[in-house]
Amino acid sequence: MEEIFYYIGVIGSFALAISGALVAMNKRLDPFGVLIVAFVTAVGGGTLRDILIEGRDIFWITDPNYIYFILGGAVFAMIFQDRLEILRVQLLLFDTIGLALFTVIGVQVGLSFDFNYTICIILGVITGAFGGVSRDILVNEIPVIFQKEIYATISIIGGGFYIILVHFECKDGIYQLLPIALIIALRLIVVYKEITLPSIYKENE
Amino acid sequence: MEEIFYYIGVIGSFALAISGALVAMNKRLDPFGVLIVAFVTAVGGGTLRDILIEGRDIFWITDPNYIYFILGGAVFAMIFQDRLEILRVQLLLFDTIGLALFTVIGVQVGLSFDFNYTICIILGVITGAFGGVSRDILVNEIPVIFQKEIYATISIIGGGFYIILVHFECKDGIYQLLPIALIIALRLIVVYKEITLPSIYKENE
Amino acid sequence: MEEIFYYIGVIGSFALAISGALVAMNKRLDPFGVLIVAFVTAVGGGTLRDILIEGRDIFWITDPNYIYFILGGAVFAMIFQDRLEILRVQLLLFDTIGLALFTVIGVQVGLSFDFNYTICIILGVITGAFGGVSRDILVNEIPVIFQKEIYATISIIGGGFYIILVHFECKDGIYQLLPIALIIALRLIVVYKEITLPSIYKENE
Repeated sequence: MEEIFYYIGVIGSFALAISGALVAMNKRLDPFGVLIVAFVTAVGGGTLRDILIEGRDIFWITDPNYIYFILGGAVFAMIFQDRLEILRVQLLLFDTIGLALFTVIGVQVGLSFDFNYTICIILGVITGAFGGVSRDILVNEIPVIFQKEIYATISIIGGGFYIILVHFECKDGIYQLLPIALIIALRLIVVYKEITLPSIYKENE
Repeated sequence: MEEIFYYIGVIGSFALAISGALVAMNKRLDPFGVLIVAFVTAVGGGTLRDILIEGRDIFWITDPNYIYFILGGAVFAMIFQDRLEILRVQLLLFDTIGLALFTVIGVQVGLSFDFNYTICIILGVITGAFGGVSRDILVNEIPVIFQKEIYATISIIGGGFYIILVHFECKDGIYQLLPIALIIALRLIVVYKEITLPSIYKENE
Repeated sequence: MEEIFYYIGVIGSFALAISGALVAMNKRLDPFGVLIVAFVTAVGGGTLRDILIEGRDIFWITDPNYIYFILGGAVFAMIFQDRLEILRVQLLLFDTIGLALFTVIGVQVGLSFDFNYTICIILGVITGAFGGVSRDILVNEIPVIFQKEIYATISIIGGGFYIILVHFECKDGIYQLLPIALIIALRLIVVYKEITLPSIYKENE
């Protein structure tokens, strides 16, 4: 089970690196800039989580394999930039798998340190969503997840669902797949139906 | 004494969360964005301080009560957004109490790790002022404290004054109130009199 | 040898502080803003490196001398802002020495923790180049090293060259000067010849 998680995690990094590289190329950064933005998009969430947890090593320093996959993702995006339009659906799927898996991994890490449930969910959201936030800060945009996508809200829901399962001692590998499936399903529905969070602002302001 | 500090600290977080939420709503972020910006504004300073100190846990991970108060502040701001104009004076007061208290707490933390006085003052300023800096980075603005307010300068003065008191062994609780009072007084004078730092630029450039 | 490194490191911080202060004054920040941007430019890279390495203290907290030199650099830049134009060549030289030395120091720190070579190079680049990245984020610009300068690419080349030397057990002080000289030479050539990274975009897009 753990091994499967690991491989999906690596694939998630690869997908997030591509997503970061595409945003960077849209801003016409030079190759090094594209590489850095890809790297930060892929590892930003997990890195902040590991910085916040006293006594925990940064995951990609302990296991540099992530770096090679991210480098691969960035180079792949630079080479195939014209043709990636065709792969949009696959990319969204990878990105969504990344969100789902990174959220669950973040919650797991929190649980392994015996943190309060609220903290675990926050660590899940940070792991799943902060990479995209740092990407947007680097390219000088207001983070997109603060504005229109329900990205992070779905991460909270999935993380909360995972905590409920854990609380009722559903800890087997098979149960860990449920919140992952929930996050993927919700995100695909949201993107397909173009659902947004209800506005908190009055219309004709 | 410590208990009083704790409660005022929690109230300071609540006030800073409201201030962050107001800035985020001004940028018309969605509810999740408002929540995150409120959270970062309230805990950003203390979080950076705790990250910089090797061997120290992040305060809100150890004590999740802060999170609930911040959540409360953000929801409060979203519900009463129209009426918060009326509360401007109260908000400024809370914000100023937060600055004063967070500065003194930051210096105290530095002293408890036996850091050099300069480092202690820097940790005080970081604790007091970095939340606002991260808020402005997130909403894609040049941090306001770099431009017109004397916010951080007052934090340095208050932190320095506290260090002087500590150096002359005035360590009783009552003495800790003096730098807090000084910061609050200076900030209210500065805001009321619209004082700014002297310009370092020539006029007709 | 170590002592020489230390002094050049301090001089590098001084030069980077001036470079940060100049950018901040260009944005017409107030004196405190100039000070903070100078500080972040000078210590940002080493600070992120030390945050990422679990169990390592932040260098300027352990040795506050850096702070006094940075403060000196920022004040120097504010006083002599009009005349610094004349010093442009000297500043570029200091800045380049800073990049070279900070890169080698970053790689050394990585090696002392027995990290993988790739990680060591990344830590070198972070130490050498991240200060400029944080400076640009603070003043709300897309980091300049992502766009036109080959700054970070040279840091990667120099760090990689240092790793090769170490791998073949060329560990004497004299060998450490080689990557430093390489970085300085490459950067001066690049600036003088106005070389940029090859574009990854088609011309008439």
